[in-house]
Amino acid sequence: METVVEFSLAGVIAVLTRTPPTLNALLSGLPSIWVGRNEGKDTWSAFDILGHLIFLERTQWMQRVRIVLETGEARPFDPVDRFAQLRENQAKSIEERLDDFARLRRDNLAALQALDLQPGDLARLGSHPALGVVTLSEVLATWAVHDLNHLHQISRVMAHQYRDSVGPWKAYMGVLHCAGHSAP
Amino acid sequence: METVVEFSLAGVIAVLTRTPPTLNALLSGLPSIWVGRNEGKDTWSAFDILGHLIFLERTQWMQRVRIVLETGEARPFDPVDRFAQLRENQAKSIEERLDDFARLRRDNLAALQALDLQPGDLARLGSHPALGVVTLSEVLATWAVHDLNHLHQISRVMAHQYRDSVGPWKAYMGVLHCAGHSAP
Repeated sequence: METVVEFSLAGVIAVLTRTPPTLNALLSGLPSIWVGRNEGKDTWSAFDILGHLIFLERTQWMQRVRIVLETGEARPFDPVDRFAQLRENQAKSIEERLDDFARLRRDNLAALQALDLQPGDLARLGSHPALGVVTLSEVLATWAVHDLNHLHQISRVMAHQYRDSVGPWKAYMGVLHCAGHSAP
Repeated sequence: METVVEFSLAGVIAVLTRTPPTLNALLSGLPSIWVGRNEGKDTWSAFDILGHLIFLERTQWMQRVRIVLETGEARPFDPVDRFAQLRENQAKSIEERLDDFARLRRDNLAALQALDLQPGDLARLGSHPALGVVTLSEVLATWAVHDLNHLHQISRVMAHQYRDSVGPWKAYMGVLHCAGHSAP
């Protein structure tokens, strides 16, 4: 069996559409003490991660799509502020953040579909400030994988809270041995 | 901020209750070609992982709880068959497996709550065939972390399918650098 799915716009949209209800099912109604815990100093809680997803939904993904289509490589993308979620409204509940994320994602998917991208558009080029030349299909694939990256992180941050509670089973639970693999 | 949540039966139930709707939101309706792909030889697809969750829901978790309560350390738990999902009905759709998992989990949570466990029960002892003496609270915490372990795995297996499609962003996506951390 092959292990790689070919990129398709429909495949990206299938993942992007599912992330808000997935996070809602996972996190809505969980005690705030649970979703507010992180993995230690300078790490993110589920609440922080949602703030990061909201910030990028508001400021990055569709903007990058539009930059590729409107100006191509001539104008590099804005760098991502990875600390912006610390300036998001900290008083909101996890449910309010889930609602904000779902609404922003819905609007962005509507805008994406309104572009009626054709196969030729997916090969158009943009410029990332650190990574260099990228294609529109790479922007879109990364949008979906970025969702999965943070679902992977949220499941790890939640599991971390019970790392002592599982006793000797810690040895068997791979999620408790995942270091996050952050890029330097 | 402390980074560990104290074990509680309510906390375990909060996670166990959320896993079926989370997996449903993530996987239901995804093309079978997507949920059927794995990470290469001898690895699991999302479809396989659901089969594993179903098998343990049917044969392990509540059985272990009952062994602790009924016979304690005298009777070791049965070892887990990690290949049982390969004998589960392969012709089912992902949606049928999601439904099976949701039903089994609902029944098990009803059975767990019917036990009306008291704080003293959580310290009762059982015997794991490889790990030795464990407490009932460790069995229950592991049940929840095992869910999160496989959510972590599913997000990684899905992201893997686009590892080439993201182009140079591969460097930034920790999920694409996660080796699974399986116990030997």
